[in-house]
Amino acid sequence: MDLKARVRDVPDFPKPGILFKDIMPLLADPPAFAFAVDALCARYTAADIDVIAAAEARGFLFAAPMAIQMKKPLIPLRKPGKLPGATRSFKYDLEYGSAELHVHADAIRAGSRVLVVDDVLATGGTMAAACQLVEHAGGAVIGCAFLIELAFLNGRAPLAGRDIFSLLTY
Amino acid sequence: MDLKARVRDVPDFPKPGILFKDIMPLLADPPAFAFAVDALCARYTAADIDVIAAAEARGFLFAAPMAIQMKKPLIPLRKPGKLPGATRSFKYDLEYGSAELHVHADAIRAGSRVLVVDDVLATGGTMAAACQLVEHAGGAVIGCAFLIELAFLNGRAPLAGRDIFSLLTY
Repeated sequence: MDLKARVRDVPDFPKPGILFKDIMPLLADPPAFAFAVDALCARYTAADIDVIAAAEARGFLFAAPMAIQMKKPLIPLRKPGKLPGATRSFKYDLEYGSAELHVHADAIRAGSRVLVVDDVLATGGTMAAACQLVEHAGGAVIGCAFLIELAFLNGRAPLAGRDIFSLLTY
Repeated sequence: MDLKARVRDVPDFPKPGILFKDIMPLLADPPAFAFAVDALCARYTAADIDVIAAAEARGFLFAAPMAIQMKKPLIPLRKPGKLPGATRSFKYDLEYGSAELHVHADAIRAGSRVLVVDDVLATGGTMAAACQLVEHAGGAVIGCAFLIELAFLNGRAPLAGRDIFSLLTY
């Protein structure tokens, strides 16, 4: 299936000079969305995974159906103030300012093997933070899965040494 | 399946006096999460639905697997600044301040029959805004589906006249 035909280029978003990859057309095409989720799951058929984690919000769109299909627990990694229980958190730098991801302190058992899912690998900042948060919470990151990788942004650099898979590369 | 056993009460969140219903344990229990999604889908087996819409972020957790299972397009309703294309938006009041939901202007065809999904029906403010945004964009809301309804908050009032379904009621 030609998934790239379901990803729309939007120039100058979120700022001038950036060509944004919009996955909304893919989500709006049921066979394409199902195919993408199946293909992401298929990559990990033989992998020993205990838990699937994903950062809000777009990561949820792929991680939720993957968790159901792979019959694995889903652990949302959330922005500050969203999780009601005691959390562990990881703060990371963005181009302007900083962001923080939280996970419930009891969500990840020590030694759990965690697959972290997101829609797009751009600079790798969010995924690197997600992985460090998972490790901080006691888990072991066994893979990072993406629908899309923007290879020219070199997002693999902050993820050096990690097992990375992306379905579509630009 | 006893889904309520997978919903954790957290007192005094997000502020003193509020008993928060935390669905993280349910998401972390693969049979329970799958059962919940199946049960939400089952309610609409005979319904004539064109599209599933959901507001970020937790709405995505249920709407994404439902869209795949029901083979319907998924239309995320997003916070400002997230969607790259031209959008329609709807601003609504919260207890403190206001919020805004956006949808791509071309995402919903005129007359499309839309099921709107969210995790929790509390005061109904977000769902009412989501429904008005869908209608503003040309769609017809044929139902509002929730995992949980906090009946004592009377969230059905701002949704009067709409078809509402919730799997768990407190």
